[in-house]
Amino acid sequence: MVRYLTEENSAAAVIDRINDAECSPRFRRIMEGLIMHLHAFIREVALTQEEWEVAIDVLTRTGQKCSAERQEFILMSDTLGVSMLVDAINNRRPEGATENTVLGPFHVAGAPELPMGANISLDGVGESCLFRGRVLDIDGRPVAGAKIDVWSDNANGFYDVQQPGIQPKWNNRGIFTTGADGAYHFRGIKPTSYPVPVDGPAGEMLTAMGRHPYRPSHTHVIVTARGFQKLVTHIFVGDDPYIESDAVFGVKPSLIAPFARTDGGDTAWVCPFDFVLAPQD
Amino acid sequence: MVRYLTEENSAAAVIDRINDAECSPRFRRIMEGLIMHLHAFIREVALTQEEWEVAIDVLTRTGQKCSAERQEFILMSDTLGVSMLVDAINNRRPEGATENTVLGPFHVAGAPELPMGANISLDGVGESCLFRGRVLDIDGRPVAGAKIDVWSDNANGFYDVQQPGIQPKWNNRGIFTTGADGAYHFRGIKPTSYPVPVDGPAGEMLTAMGRHPYRPSHTHVIVTARGFQKLVTHIFVGDDPYIESDAVFGVKPSLIAPFARTDGGDTAWVCPFDFVLAPQD
Repeated sequence: MVRYLTEENSAAAVIDRINDAECSPRFRRIMEGLIMHLHAFIREVALTQEEWEVAIDVLTRTGQKCSAERQEFILMSDTLGVSMLVDAINNRRPEGATENTVLGPFHVAGAPELPMGANISLDGVGESCLFRGRVLDIDGRPVAGAKIDVWSDNANGFYDVQQPGIQPKWNNRGIFTTGADGAYHFRGIKPTSYPVPVDGPAGEMLTAMGRHPYRPSHTHVIVTARGFQKLVTHIFVGDDPYIESDAVFGVKPSLIAPFARTDGGDTAWVCPFDFVLAPQD
Repeated sequence: MVRYLTEENSAAAVIDRINDAECSPRFRRIMEGLIMHLHAFIREVALTQEEWEVAIDVLTRTGQKCSAERQEFILMSDTLGVSMLVDAINNRRPEGATENTVLGPFHVAGAPELPMGANISLDGVGESCLFRGRVLDIDGRPVAGAKIDVWSDNANGFYDVQQPGIQPKWNNRGIFTTGADGAYHFRGIKPTSYPVPVDGPAGEMLTAMGRHPYRPSHTHVIVTARGFQKLVTHIFVGDDPYIESDAVFGVKPSLIAPFARTDGGDTAWVCPFDFVLAPQD
């Protein structure tokens, strides 16, 4: 039992106070890890009193920036790669299954259920694109009854919910359900890169690190089907200038889709992409 | 250069984004340490998505609990031993010098300058106590002109600023200046243990860890004198039930004073304590 905290024993002094009779084993494990790494970090960098004051101020302002429309701590987590690490740890999949990536803040439940081939670009802002492919299981068999929930920004770089009154409600959003062949296709736009919000502490941090705030262009997708793990992912546009420097580290090479120009027809681009679902555990 | 974040390379992927041309070397070092330990912590405990959501919620509520009167992130720092670790790193002193401890949230600048022997207990709530001793340098020579700024709670466990209108302004506060002999004495009360605020996330954390929120009884002191390091410390009451379990880890054995009952006279207790100042670097 450590009675008094010193510079040398500080983490142990705090951990020793955990009362196992009243603390759940899981909370103990999390707090032990947190305390050990927090104290080791502070010792390693020999944090000054002034730097500690800056840290308290940044954390306080991050909390106070949060509102019903804004979650600055998630943005901090995203831009520090924490959200993607947590996503990776919790979505380990068998070889061949489509990989997960972050949900992001702009998903809205209850988008319209649309027939195959429908156009989700209601404002027409952007280059038209045909998305098509199949939902498959890990053995290549089609998955029937899979729901594909898609959403993206328009070519101005904003989601409908960021521009109420300017964009039509449900612009660039829709849900499609596969038939027996597992196939899907719908029309929309080739998405556009955009910056994460920089008018808060996360933006200050990016600037101080010399980092840009852009996300490479992507279309969000959630695929669900009975008997399969929920897939939360993006389809990325490979020729985006930010593809190797996503501000939130969401890109995985397997999620870069071969967007290609068409030779005419009713869309300027075509994006073929198959979703491979992992079986439910 | 790491292009894409994976579960295995996540910390390196984030650190590699730091742009040395635009990031100060000190900020780089701090962010490197923070990112490495944050990612190592999450991997070691295999944080679940739900636990991450709890962490985001706790951090957000901690920021939103902060106001002009309340600093919940400092309370988190205090109760996790971080404030004392930072204090220890930044106040390494030569053998024999009085040790530092945390400032706490209740110091008020501009307390009345009082003559030696004055009574700082304006409400009389508590057992009377004579504080006396000397301010010395590391070689035992008296320090003249040292300012001793003291403050404590009353015997109900509250500071004057916590009970405006109930306690007199400047109750249990005062500044005393030493003469040529370095000696000081003043009257006040034997202080009382009290809980840190538990109506916020720090209180929830203490409860979940099975920890009590009490600080052992103490009188705060700041001693300043030209040519010496500023001393921010407490005088602790040794027979306090919480002396070995201070909720903010502020106790150092050298700061426990020999409070003793008197055989009568005008105070019930006497607290002899010398302050030994380290020379300015």
